[in-house]
Amino acid sequence: MHADLAALVGADHVADDVALGDASGLSGVARALVTPGSAAEVAAVVAWCYARDVAMIPVGGRSGYSGGIVPVPDAGAGDVIAIALDRLDRVRSFDPLRWRMEAEAGVTTATIARRARESGLLFPPDPGAAEQSQLGGNLATNAGGPHAFKYGVTGRWVTGVEAVIAPGELVAFGGPVRKDVAGLDLRALLIGSEGTLGIITSAWLALVPAPAETFVVAAAYASVRAGCDAVDAVLGSGVVPAAVEYLDGRCIAAAPPPFLPDADGAELLVVCEAESARDRDELLEALGTGAVAPPPAEVWRWREGVSIAVRAARGEKLSEDVAVPGERLADAIEGTIAIGARHGLEGCSWGHAGDGNLHATFLLDPGDAEMRARADAAASELFDLARALGGTASGEHGIGLLKGGQLSRQWAPAAVEAARAVKRALDPKGLFNPGKKEP
Amino acid sequence: MHADLAALVGADHVADDVALGDASGLSGVARALVTPGSAAEVAAVVAWCYARDVAMIPVGGRSGYSGGIVPVPDAGAGDVIAIALDRLDRVRSFDPLRWRMEAEAGVTTATIARRARESGLLFPPDPGAAEQSQLGGNLATNAGGPHAFKYGVTGRWVTGVEAVIAPGELVAFGGPVRKDVAGLDLRALLIGSEGTLGIITSAWLALVPAPAETFVVAAAYASVRAGCDAVDAVLGSGVVPAAVEYLDGRCIAAAPPPFLPDADGAELLVVCEAESARDRDELLEALGTGAVAPPPAEVWRWREGVSIAVRAARGEKLSEDVAVPGERLADAIEGTIAIGARHGLEGCSWGHAGDGNLHATFLLDPGDAEMRARADAAASELFDLARALGGTASGEHGIGLLKGGQLSRQWAPAAVEAARAVKRALDPKGLFNPGKKEP
Repeated sequence: MHADLAALVGADHVADDVALGDASGLSGVARALVTPGSAAEVAAVVAWCYARDVAMIPVGGRSGYSGGIVPVPDAGAGDVIAIALDRLDRVRSFDPLRWRMEAEAGVTTATIARRARESGLLFPPDPGAAEQSQLGGNLATNAGGPHAFKYGVTGRWVTGVEAVIAPGELVAFGGPVRKDVAGLDLRALLIGSEGTLGIITSAWLALVPAPAETFVVAAAYASVRAGCDAVDAVLGSGVVPAAVEYLDGRCIAAAPPPFLPDADGAELLVVCEAESARDRDELLEALGTGAVAPPPAEVWRWREGVSIAVRAARGEKLSEDVAVPGERLADAIEGTIAIGARHGLEGCSWGHAGDGNLHATFLLDPGDAEMRARADAAASELFDLARALGGTASGEHGIGLLKGGQLSRQWAPAAVEAARAVKRALDPKGLFNPGKKEP
Repeated sequence: MHADLAALVGADHVADDVALGDASGLSGVARALVTPGSAAEVAAVVAWCYARDVAMIPVGGRSGYSGGIVPVPDAGAGDVIAIALDRLDRVRSFDPLRWRMEAEAGVTTATIARRARESGLLFPPDPGAAEQSQLGGNLATNAGGPHAFKYGVTGRWVTGVEAVIAPGELVAFGGPVRKDVAGLDLRALLIGSEGTLGIITSAWLALVPAPAETFVVAAAYASVRAGCDAVDAVLGSGVVPAAVEYLDGRCIAAAPPPFLPDADGAELLVVCEAESARDRDELLEALGTGAVAPPPAEVWRWREGVSIAVRAARGEKLSEDVAVPGERLADAIEGTIAIGARHGLEGCSWGHAGDGNLHATFLLDPGDAEMRARADAAASELFDLARALGGTASGEHGIGLLKGGQLSRQWAPAAVEAARAVKRALDPKGLFNPGKKEP
């Protein structure tokens, strides 16, 4: 195997028996880690694997939260190799006048954002870990982030993908053209498929002029309900905020907002972004007494660190990205705390209030296996709660390995069977990321 | 057959041997036209058909431009029936505070827009024929329209679909939750599939607060190139226009803009919508000398009539909705005229300049079969031109019956085979709208 793969991508780009893990804490060992230097080399590796029944895991920035890149030895396939997209790191084209960029899968989120910003443009998806995460991973999970509230998730900004599909064919679905309904939307199908239908090697991205100025408003509330009422007031204000974020009381304590010292002891913090001074004023009014308008850069720098601060509160954590319809947000926030309490755990959450998307979390002591087992049981209840509230087990991280089996509790059997049929149609041998995104 | 179908939906809702046509001018006869009264009845009819190898065509407002609802007797299936969604005309729920509506497939575009507007909200897709077209048809084609430039096409505003899939199962993909990556995106796959994978019966729509005020700016240019340069200036202005439309000289003559008498004799008219007075001023500057800012209502009323006015110029027309990357818009506009001239036809176009989406048109004498044959040959060249320019045979109308076979000229063989495999996976008997959207 080593010699064959080395012949395809060069000996320097094949490593044997490589451990792979991501931000979920899960890890496993792949028989080989191959790092092709071009889309054509990805196609050659896939063709080699597909002819020999070798399973393949596409690997990006390793910043995922669901174990999507973790090898599963018993997933039904034989050998499993990982295909890292790191060397596909070129911005193939960038045309600011056309609000358009073609970037390879290994380009980091930060690079795309920076290149766009330098020309006055915005690539809106901001799923976090910007310096580490790669476009390919963002596409594989159809990643969200705070600004998904106004701008939509990653797939909204993709007019075409280039991908290697079975049995090793490099194809494109869509391209630079902004509207295209000539074929079935296999572009959209590949996005969010977590590498289970093929490997995306490049994408045509739509950009948009960046707002001339942005503003942030924030306020703290004495109860979860009062905070969620404020979110409702924001949605009823007539303004379209770019982001509507929240932290519950435990998260506020773990990551005190430097711009709002009064938040100490509050049960909910609400943070919104506006794109005009007029909208800022409307949102300040919607948030009510005590609302402040701190400098956006300070707020987003702090916001970027919330996940790490919450983890640091106890040393370890388990976070799940459930999402619910907006009117059930308070139920989900309070439910997370209650579920934790039933399992003897501190439950808390923060996340994207406007999208009803929680990072529902249980704080853990590092290395405490029994506590972790309780957290896993609590997470299972959390998924049940999300579904009971009309929501989903995953709003933006994907199913990966961690949440395998959740879809079958969420979709009707016939819908699940449709998903399985599509998987079989595009990957008849089941070699693309086996054991992941399992219904 | 009649008695069986009558037992499922009621005798009043089954008609035999019904001619079906749409705005493409094509028509054909279905063995029966069934009009179920509920999603459950749609499922019952599909189950009956699927068990008996009877093909099904979903029928909406009959305003399509590609013959998507036209029965094809020789499409390989035996009997073909049509299933009209007209009676699925309920808005199942509307929650203005949540920016959300669930509407059945037979609800008209105008009804959705009006209900949203009454609560200060906007359902952005505006594909035209608002009083006639239905949500189901908009979803089947993933319809666009002028405001798709800023807001994106129909699918962008759909968080979930309810559909009947083979062999007669009523399922939902997604729902009211705004973010959901738990399953493969079969929601997106069904949208734009033109009824070839199943029948959408209802959808959860995301809405957005309507802009407080809108403004229109317009200007006319002495040449196609000068007009396209103005479009470029608009895109470079830093403003995000809601719409960027154009008409070429022949279309201006056919539909003179009442708000710009100076346009007489011009070769290109550019019309943009802004959502603030400041943006309006920026766009006026971008459009240059002679730009005007007429009342939006007057402009959009006129714009709605352009297609009819162009048809009336000679009595009949053939229009195709090709799309190209923005930098090739002038080539496509000029190319349409040149192709027409080569076939002894008046070629002209209007459409969505910002999206590079032309309604490329050949003017025809009604009933002149020889002229129509020349127009068909010209259309074929037009598709070739769109592809040569990096574009697509269909930006928003779909492939339907009219453009069958175009995808195979546009996608690589392996990509086409992937589309066929997905079709076979979800419709193994090939009974959903056979002969349509054929690659």
